[in-house]
Amino acid sequence: MPETLIKVDLSQSPYENENIHNRWHPDIPIAAWVKPGDDFVLETYDWTGGAIKNDDSADDVRDVDLSTVHFLSGPVGVEGAEPGDLLVVDFLDIGAKPDSLWGFNGFFSKKNGGGFLTEHFPQAQKSIWDFHGMFTSSRHIPGVNFAGLIHPGLIGCLPDQAMLDTWNKREQALIDTNPERVPPLANPPAPKTAHMGRLQGAARDKAAAEGARTVPPREHGGNCDIKDLSRGSRVFFPVYVPGGGLSVGDLHFSQGDGEITFCGAIEMAGWIHMRVSLIKGGMAKYGIRNPIFKPSPITPNYKDYLIFEGISVDEGGGQHYLDVHIAYRQACLNAIEYLKKFGYSGAQAYSILGTAPVQGHISGVVDIPNACATLWLPTEIFEFDIQPQASGPVKAISGGVDMPLSPDL
Amino acid sequence: MPETLIKVDLSQSPYENENIHNRWHPDIPIAAWVKPGDDFVLETYDWTGGAIKNDDSADDVRDVDLSTVHFLSGPVGVEGAEPGDLLVVDFLDIGAKPDSLWGFNGFFSKKNGGGFLTEHFPQAQKSIWDFHGMFTSSRHIPGVNFAGLIHPGLIGCLPDQAMLDTWNKREQALIDTNPERVPPLANPPAPKTAHMGRLQGAARDKAAAEGARTVPPREHGGNCDIKDLSRGSRVFFPVYVPGGGLSVGDLHFSQGDGEITFCGAIEMAGWIHMRVSLIKGGMAKYGIRNPIFKPSPITPNYKDYLIFEGISVDEGGGQHYLDVHIAYRQACLNAIEYLKKFGYSGAQAYSILGTAPVQGHISGVVDIPNACATLWLPTEIFEFDIQPQASGPVKAISGGVDMPLSPDL
Amino acid sequence: MPETLIKVDLSQSPYENENIHNRWHPDIPIAAWVKPGDDFVLETYDWTGGAIKNDDSADDVRDVDLSTVHFLSGPVGVEGAEPGDLLVVDFLDIGAKPDSLWGFNGFFSKKNGGGFLTEHFPQAQKSIWDFHGMFTSSRHIPGVNFAGLIHPGLIGCLPDQAMLDTWNKREQALIDTNPERVPPLANPPAPKTAHMGRLQGAARDKAAAEGARTVPPREHGGNCDIKDLSRGSRVFFPVYVPGGGLSVGDLHFSQGDGEITFCGAIEMAGWIHMRVSLIKGGMAKYGIRNPIFKPSPITPNYKDYLIFEGISVDEGGGQHYLDVHIAYRQACLNAIEYLKKFGYSGAQAYSILGTAPVQGHISGVVDIPNACATLWLPTEIFEFDIQPQASGPVKAISGGVDMPLSPDL
Amino acid sequence: MPETLIKVDLSQSPYENENIHNRWHPDIPIAAWVKPGDDFVLETYDWTGGAIKNDDSADDVRDVDLSTVHFLSGPVGVEGAEPGDLLVVDFLDIGAKPDSLWGFNGFFSKKNGGGFLTEHFPQAQKSIWDFHGMFTSSRHIPGVNFAGLIHPGLIGCLPDQAMLDTWNKREQALIDTNPERVPPLANPPAPKTAHMGRLQGAARDKAAAEGARTVPPREHGGNCDIKDLSRGSRVFFPVYVPGGGLSVGDLHFSQGDGEITFCGAIEMAGWIHMRVSLIKGGMAKYGIRNPIFKPSPITPNYKDYLIFEGISVDEGGGQHYLDVHIAYRQACLNAIEYLKKFGYSGAQAYSILGTAPVQGHISGVVDIPNACATLWLPTEIFEFDIQPQASGPVKAISGGVDMPLSPDL
Repeated sequence: MPETLIKVDLSQSPYENENIHNRWHPDIPIAAWVKPGDDFVLETYDWTGGAIKNDDSADDVRDVDLSTVHFLSGPVGVEGAEPGDLLVVDFLDIGAKPDSLWGFNGFFSKKNGGGFLTEHFPQAQKSIWDFHGMFTSSRHIPGVNFAGLIHPGLIGCLPDQAMLDTWNKREQALIDTNPERVPPLANPPAPKTAHMGRLQGAARDKAAAEGARTVPPREHGGNCDIKDLSRGSRVFFPVYVPGGGLSVGDLHFSQGDGEITFCGAIEMAGWIHMRVSLIKGGMAKYGIRNPIFKPSPITPNYKDYLIFEGISVDEGGGQHYLDVHIAYRQACLNAIEYLKKFGYSGAQAYSILGTAPVQGHISGVVDIPNACATLWLPTEIFEFDIQPQASGPVKAISGGVDMPLSPDL
Repeated sequence: MPETLIKVDLSQSPYENENIHNRWHPDIPIAAWVKPGDDFVLETYDWTGGAIKNDDSADDVRDVDLSTVHFLSGPVGVEGAEPGDLLVVDFLDIGAKPDSLWGFNGFFSKKNGGGFLTEHFPQAQKSIWDFHGMFTSSRHIPGVNFAGLIHPGLIGCLPDQAMLDTWNKREQALIDTNPERVPPLANPPAPKTAHMGRLQGAARDKAAAEGARTVPPREHGGNCDIKDLSRGSRVFFPVYVPGGGLSVGDLHFSQGDGEITFCGAIEMAGWIHMRVSLIKGGMAKYGIRNPIFKPSPITPNYKDYLIFEGISVDEGGGQHYLDVHIAYRQACLNAIEYLKKFGYSGAQAYSILGTAPVQGHISGVVDIPNACATLWLPTEIFEFDIQPQASGPVKAISGGVDMPLSPDL
Repeated sequence: MPETLIKVDLSQSPYENENIHNRWHPDIPIAAWVKPGDDFVLETYDWTGGAIKNDDSADDVRDVDLSTVHFLSGPVGVEGAEPGDLLVVDFLDIGAKPDSLWGFNGFFSKKNGGGFLTEHFPQAQKSIWDFHGMFTSSRHIPGVNFAGLIHPGLIGCLPDQAMLDTWNKREQALIDTNPERVPPLANPPAPKTAHMGRLQGAARDKAAAEGARTVPPREHGGNCDIKDLSRGSRVFFPVYVPGGGLSVGDLHFSQGDGEITFCGAIEMAGWIHMRVSLIKGGMAKYGIRNPIFKPSPITPNYKDYLIFEGISVDEGGGQHYLDVHIAYRQACLNAIEYLKKFGYSGAQAYSILGTAPVQGHISGVVDIPNACATLWLPTEIFEFDIQPQASGPVKAISGGVDMPLSPDL
Repeated sequence: MPETLIKVDLSQSPYENENIHNRWHPDIPIAAWVKPGDDFVLETYDWTGGAIKNDDSADDVRDVDLSTVHFLSGPVGVEGAEPGDLLVVDFLDIGAKPDSLWGFNGFFSKKNGGGFLTEHFPQAQKSIWDFHGMFTSSRHIPGVNFAGLIHPGLIGCLPDQAMLDTWNKREQALIDTNPERVPPLANPPAPKTAHMGRLQGAARDKAAAEGARTVPPREHGGNCDIKDLSRGSRVFFPVYVPGGGLSVGDLHFSQGDGEITFCGAIEMAGWIHMRVSLIKGGMAKYGIRNPIFKPSPITPNYKDYLIFEGISVDEGGGQHYLDVHIAYRQACLNAIEYLKKFGYSGAQAYSILGTAPVQGHISGVVDIPNACATLWLPTEIFEFDIQPQASGPVKAISGGVDMPLSPDL
């Protein structure tokens, strides 16, 4: 049995667990040390630390304090790891907490974080997904059932001070271009809700004041939300501080490319079993700036796709220059429109794109002025036939069930 | 034997072939009529109509007149097709012209079109790829050999006048924001080099004056450059004019997601064997705005990938808001840096990303302020081992061979 | 949390657990009842009920009493199931017992069961495989590491009396053709070691006297040892008795097609999470005689194979008529010879073929007089390169480690 | 353009083409020489040399003289190849003759060759398959349409005299055990219909008298009928005579594992584009006795299977000892019975199993006394849904169309 280095009690606040933290800072003390070649288990909270409940109201999604996220387990120190090394991490397995076999997906209110399609779905909504072994389905979205492509949304090593300063500086510069924007352009440090692990007192306060928020992916990896970084894959992380300081959290039972619903994938509390080793000096040897990885040999193998195209002309007909973000948004909107013909509400369709293993491809980025993006929807996840045919769509979903919605207060 | 409806003689200028056109306009006369259920073959020029030669100089890439592209075969009319229908097209097979078993890939000069990485590779370069049955390799880029994922870069139905007007209007509006930009933001009509098929005289001149350029993908599909729209796939195209008016060209032997080199994929002259049918009123039935498609059951099946991450922080450290274009550029630059460790020049590495079946995924688009994109490089296309290992990379490419470069004049 | 209907204590003899049985008979009492739509967990012993230990001696393999196998968990009754129905079983998940994260593979002595290559490996040998999350490796066989294709070797419904009688009659008829053969042609009932679940006294003795041995696959499924009947798959079982009476055991962490080592796959104690439903009258509706199934969407996805051919000419040069068994044996022997060139002992190579997800295809069965079978060896399971190349094989395995062997006494 | 070394005129008898032969013998003169590294094209007849016609009568299948098959193109000599080498052959591409875009599948009469299920289908029947680019369908079997997994049924190097003698001796020994059997156990030399390439006069007569028939697969490969030895794969052939002497024929557009219908796959005339190289002394270096190969990166990728089990109890209830041949026959019969519920005739279902890319796996070969084989039927080749469901099968095939049958005379 591999050792569980960090345990999590879901009935306890993550702030009371000293092996948890929710900011990036080089001063966060190592929670546990391992040796190269070791394998071990870390338990994790869901990214909100339990703020979202398994119920039929979206009030919790509407009201969650996003300055508290993400609650990470770690940092784990690896003996001998030095700045410039690559930390090789094998994801030997990942799972849900046995006492918490469910996850959530939702849309934040536009006033509280928003999401990819926040102009179209501006209010808080939620769907709950139950896990049945390797599979999941939702009482709020009938007609879909699929195997989980389980992965951590957030994992990476601690930054050193120079990198941390770079992050804070460039993100603040962006915020300064439009500081009143809702949702904001980026999130600055928020000391009040910072959880700096075992750090206490003045040291804690200093680190909390400059601790980087965990929301964006950055050079170290971090909140990449890459669905393919899944159980069975191998990742090569840049090391910036002695020992590396590997932290992980935000486990997902499944997610589509883009994690377009923001709140988020199918979010869950769980555990991850990893093995670590080192490539000494690997960053220079291989010219590595961001993590690289190899996909798992064992993944859900849906193959029959319906593929939707989108171009960088926005919903109002405005022309944008090679903007993949807008092109992908159009592809997603096209898919939602299609699924509505089978009886889904727009919100249900949007949630399917956020949770199921859909692919988002950058198909063309040079044919001025239009980028072209494609959204790959696996048809096999549906319990009915969604193929186009001459006789037109058959409405398989009656519409009697929908996702809870909580209007802004 | 299926009938070849349109033939192409590579020794003849495409301007002399009345079944070819290089603009989109509803007035372009139908070149040939077919019935639903028919299958037929169309031959095509390469996208430049033969301007790029199988030699070891990039002068032709530097000097090509881009206002002439793309030379398309068609339009083919389908009896009974009416606006609002979906034209279902099966790509039964696609191949190179037997007398032209090679293709080209290149980078345009920044002064003449540029490309995705034009700031890094600002001058004209070219690589020639020979076809060996299903496989291809280049005398300018040693050590790679892969199966072709053959597809048309450009295919779609004629727009009606209203859609054409929309295109011209919105693209001109973008150009007007920075009309002096090099390369330009978009391409307005260019009557001088327009080839309007069989249209002659005043009718030709009127149509040429407003005929939309073929460069960008648009609502009808067009120059989508989607590598997965390959032989064996089925596409559902919106119909805007009676008969549909299906045109096709710009065949690619292989391409990576994004077609990042712009000039372009592995470009070739060839033929395409298609079957057509109709879903009457399909646009409304299925809520279709852009084409949708189903991938082929028969594609190159490379599976072992090395995956590079990129975030929306630019080369100068500037922070951008959820910009997938920049994130993908960083992922591509990361992959190029990696490949250079094995002995490739930057240009060779860039060309590999443009030609081989690499995937580009939109991995995260909500974690403000950073988008996260991933570049999936199939390791099996290399004739040597590119996996990271503790001992560091082994230089497999000696550097004695490189891609021709033609400096700007 | 799904309910665990049957628990297993590995420190207790399976004979003491009344929810276990090791023979097939309609009189074995139902251990637990469920309803269509229910999902539930059954724990299982390894097939030998704990006779094989995690150590470095093959004495236990040599000495095991094969009349005791296989220890099955069940039977589970499904309310409403009647003879002629199809029992639909979804394998929602399968795993090893958390307190027993290892498995064994071995060859029986030719005097005690033998195996597919018993003439070549006539003595007892054993390898132990440790589980690291989804992966496994063996201290007795260096250089291989692969993901588990976890599946039950043995599962099926209780026969009715008529079917049981048919089985006993036809197998005894085969035994009678050569009753002294070692190993025997088939196994007749063996009342002494029979475990008939909760059945006691005279009823137990009667059933034990005619209870069918669990060794062969039969019409109901049973000991099929099909590696692809894995977690995530859906199986349709014929029902012969009211309630069905579903029993399961002999879990495998991984196995090659054919389970050629007989002892067996990577054998383990574990648990299986299933959901059941019914197709009323399904046997007649679909003309079903043996189970049918659909493979899992989530399986290890090794793709690069080296494929060995074999024909039905035996090791002595003798010609056999379309004998696939002999053809597959030759393909296996060819693969073993190949692997020995890289430093493996014959026994290690044999064990790899028995445990890794190798495929065995019936490639040709009509080209008289030779059948042709192919053995597909996934190259990605090796930690070194096993591809053929002009310079010949590089010996990657030093030979210092081998599988324990226990000579016959 | 690769050179076409051997051309075939389908209007000419293969006996008139001196680059064709239909027996194996070391004295057959090399038809063309190439160098290692060369690539070239060989055209081929269908295996019967044009005896079967594209019509609606099975008379030709009933009446064909099987002593004439298979007509092979070659032998091709490779400079420098010596006995003991491995001849590495890349299948760069394979296709149908452009003037012959169709193929045939059939069952021989039991009196003239028979087949795998000859007891069930004892009379001559035929289906014609038309090729539509990469796809095929049959006017005799509605409702199926699939992509071709194109491959040569027969390819290998010339035997030396010692190997030839071994073949003739061991096959005659088998024949001698039951010389009157219909169909025969094996085929002895048949000088009258032998075509020995360019060999003439007494030399021809001597070679014809002992030339091995091409029907069975043997050590050199030969008539393996392995569906996965397809375009894009790489094969390593043992070399027995100076120059190797590579011959090929019997091209198949598609075939199921086992080629169970014998006549045969979807048989076609065509061409194959190959590249050759050598591994000197490779047979000893790698311990090679039979060819080995690597599968293609580009194959039809059907993934959703319905899997049928079969055990080695025959149709009369007789018990056989680990007989995979019988087990696979039962799996095939089970699949045929299933398909009949959707409206197919037994003959149509049998033909689908012989032509479509079905897999046949040797699932269990140690669980005495029953072997277990599985037949994997890809559901995606059907134009209607063949999944089992609670409501039972829907008859999609009306039965108005069937395969021509020609009773024995």
